[in-house]
Amino acid sequence: MAKIVLVLYDDPVDGYPKTYARDDLPRIDGYADGQTLPTPKAIDFKPGTLLGSVSGELGLRKYLESLGHTLVVTASKDGPDSVLERELHDAEIVISQPFWPAYMTAERIAKAKKLKMIVTAGIGSDHTDLQAAIDNNITVAEVTFCNSISVAEHVVMMIISLVRNYIPSYQWVVKGGWNIADCVARSYDVEGMHIGTVAAGRIGLAVLRRLKPFGVHLHYNDRHRLPESVEKELGLTWHAKREDMYGACDVVTLNCPLHPETEHMINDETLKLFKRGAYIVNTARGKLCDRDAIVRALESGQLAGYAGDVWFPQPAPGNHPWRTMPHHGMTPHISGTSLSAQSRYAAGTREILECYFEDRPIRDEYLIVQGGALAGVGAHSYSKGNATGGSEEAAKYKTI
Amino acid sequence: MAKIVLVLYDDPVDGYPKTYARDDLPRIDGYADGQTLPTPKAIDFKPGTLLGSVSGELGLRKYLESLGHTLVVTASKDGPDSVLERELHDAEIVISQPFWPAYMTAERIAKAKKLKMIVTAGIGSDHTDLQAAIDNNITVAEVTFCNSISVAEHVVMMIISLVRNYIPSYQWVVKGGWNIADCVARSYDVEGMHIGTVAAGRIGLAVLRRLKPFGVHLHYNDRHRLPESVEKELGLTWHAKREDMYGACDVVTLNCPLHPETEHMINDETLKLFKRGAYIVNTARGKLCDRDAIVRALESGQLAGYAGDVWFPQPAPGNHPWRTMPHHGMTPHISGTSLSAQSRYAAGTREILECYFEDRPIRDEYLIVQGGALAGVGAHSYSKGNATGGSEEAAKYKTI
Repeated sequence: MAKIVLVLYDDPVDGYPKTYARDDLPRIDGYADGQTLPTPKAIDFKPGTLLGSVSGELGLRKYLESLGHTLVVTASKDGPDSVLERELHDAEIVISQPFWPAYMTAERIAKAKKLKMIVTAGIGSDHTDLQAAIDNNITVAEVTFCNSISVAEHVVMMIISLVRNYIPSYQWVVKGGWNIADCVARSYDVEGMHIGTVAAGRIGLAVLRRLKPFGVHLHYNDRHRLPESVEKELGLTWHAKREDMYGACDVVTLNCPLHPETEHMINDETLKLFKRGAYIVNTARGKLCDRDAIVRALESGQLAGYAGDVWFPQPAPGNHPWRTMPHHGMTPHISGTSLSAQSRYAAGTREILECYFEDRPIRDEYLIVQGGALAGVGAHSYSKGNATGGSEEAAKYKTI
Repeated sequence: MAKIVLVLYDDPVDGYPKTYARDDLPRIDGYADGQTLPTPKAIDFKPGTLLGSVSGELGLRKYLESLGHTLVVTASKDGPDSVLERELHDAEIVISQPFWPAYMTAERIAKAKKLKMIVTAGIGSDHTDLQAAIDNNITVAEVTFCNSISVAEHVVMMIISLVRNYIPSYQWVVKGGWNIADCVARSYDVEGMHIGTVAAGRIGLAVLRRLKPFGVHLHYNDRHRLPESVEKELGLTWHAKREDMYGACDVVTLNCPLHPETEHMINDETLKLFKRGAYIVNTARGKLCDRDAIVRALESGQLAGYAGDVWFPQPAPGNHPWRTMPHHGMTPHISGTSLSAQSRYAAGTREILECYFEDRPIRDEYLIVQGGALAGVGAHSYSKGNATGGSEEAAKYKTI
């Protein structure tokens, strides 16, 4: 019988919710590219409830225990005294979400002698040292597409909110003021702007589609060029190099995976290529940007705003400078864990586990690493190597 | 020679800006329905600067003084000791913006013996008692379409932000937390939701167009039905009565003018027709809603969220309950006064004044009242009567 370690974020400070704002989730019939929604044989949770926090258990306990397995659920994931570290030695499967990642470094993988599979309940497996997984014949899987639209919505929301200066204007309301000039001295319309995405995969393309009717000029950079029909439909300008796109845009959004080739691609040097007063929205991974270069660009006015929900490490320490830099619109890493998204990736994780325990193949589109090599979507989107360096910093976060 | 009283909002608390976040405005070629942008013979301002505050003067001083007219610019508009009240007796034209409206009540119009024209630099002339303007043969004009897209962007931004729980999640960042469960226990995807607009005029239709690629189901209510081709293109469901639409929707946005027939159309009784957990976004006029009924619905959970940027009166007093009610995403009235919008309505106001002083007809699409009757767009969008009752409350606001 297997031991499964499930790392989830903490419950709300006032406890697991008894009621929710809404009674159900809207029905979705499938994904934009024709991929089917997750297809577990059964689920043991109510869609629209909190599944990604400790008490939610991704709805997996009944299923796993009915098979005789042991499920350990914890939010304690960083540092040598964490529950994760203590349970690793005989864990067969480790599951976590990118919002509260179990950093699976080479050191941890070396300690986990029985480890067979690492599952990302969500999308993005950069918290796992893929090279170490390849070398140790560990399967890495994620729930492709489960929250791509959730993230795309977050991107569009943040672009409009930065450009229109939403949050500072809201704050004038709460302070009791009616300081219109203070609100609008930094407020613009999105209409007419040039907006570009680095990568036009599931998320990037969904962002472009959603922005099309705003009367904007759309740009993208991707190593895989989109079909001509899509370029034409959306009026896209393709840039072979992302550095060539930056100067053409008023807003740049990052929608590429993190791997050694994309780490710190936004830095002091590349920020000089942007127009003065450009905006960056990054819901992909925090390490795509040089943390302090972003702060400097906002302070100098080179950037007019920065928003996103990805940080490094996660959770971000209380003194992370992105919490206090000017003109930001950050959230914790939540774009892909709306209640809607949780319902899909809880079902997708269940599907992966059913395949694993029933010895059926896991969908190719869910695979990142298998049989000692990049596999499935992993071979398309990732490169070998490791992007987890520095993750020990996450232990500095203190719950409030 | 004429006296023109121009009522504008105050400059920023730290003074009129010396620099701006961005160097220019994106170029726009026209409006969505083919209407041309404002066509003054000249402008004396730099697009992208603050024009709607006192020091900006809508860029009108040079022009008006070159013709020998007197221009009075003030933010002091409410109460018997206000500059507006003092200057009314011999004013020929009064100009103000809906964000900081000069309430032109019947009493004020009676005092303004020389008044010939009231101009709204923006859209929405409900701050003028139209019946009194009709009775006194005063022209009422506004700059139709100048900021309709600005407002539509604000609506879409607020819908996504409410549904995804953006601002409370941002606040966890600033507080130093990483409380994902607290952020997402009220966070949903927009995808799959039913969204309806009350009125599908310039703004409502622009909102529908922008929401279309979000994978939502779109509804509208309007006394003028849209062309069948538009209904088909956007997959719209038309409702003959707005009350029939409410229960079909997860989100309802109000985009109709305020007049006696629409005042307080959202009230305790009509709120019962909504689904539990619905969201309302109102950037049209505050008085469309019963103020305290909105607060009650948010507190009971009948509404999951309310956002918008219109209040009654304006400015809203510091103790207005919408500043502190739960689950709101309010801004001061700014959606139509982005720097982009200001540039267009400053040019449109200049166009209207040029027409007036050169004895040329004002564009029909700018006219609300002329020659003692509703005229132009006024005859389409407004009804006779008065919606300014209670505006004296605005004098209670204190600048912070």
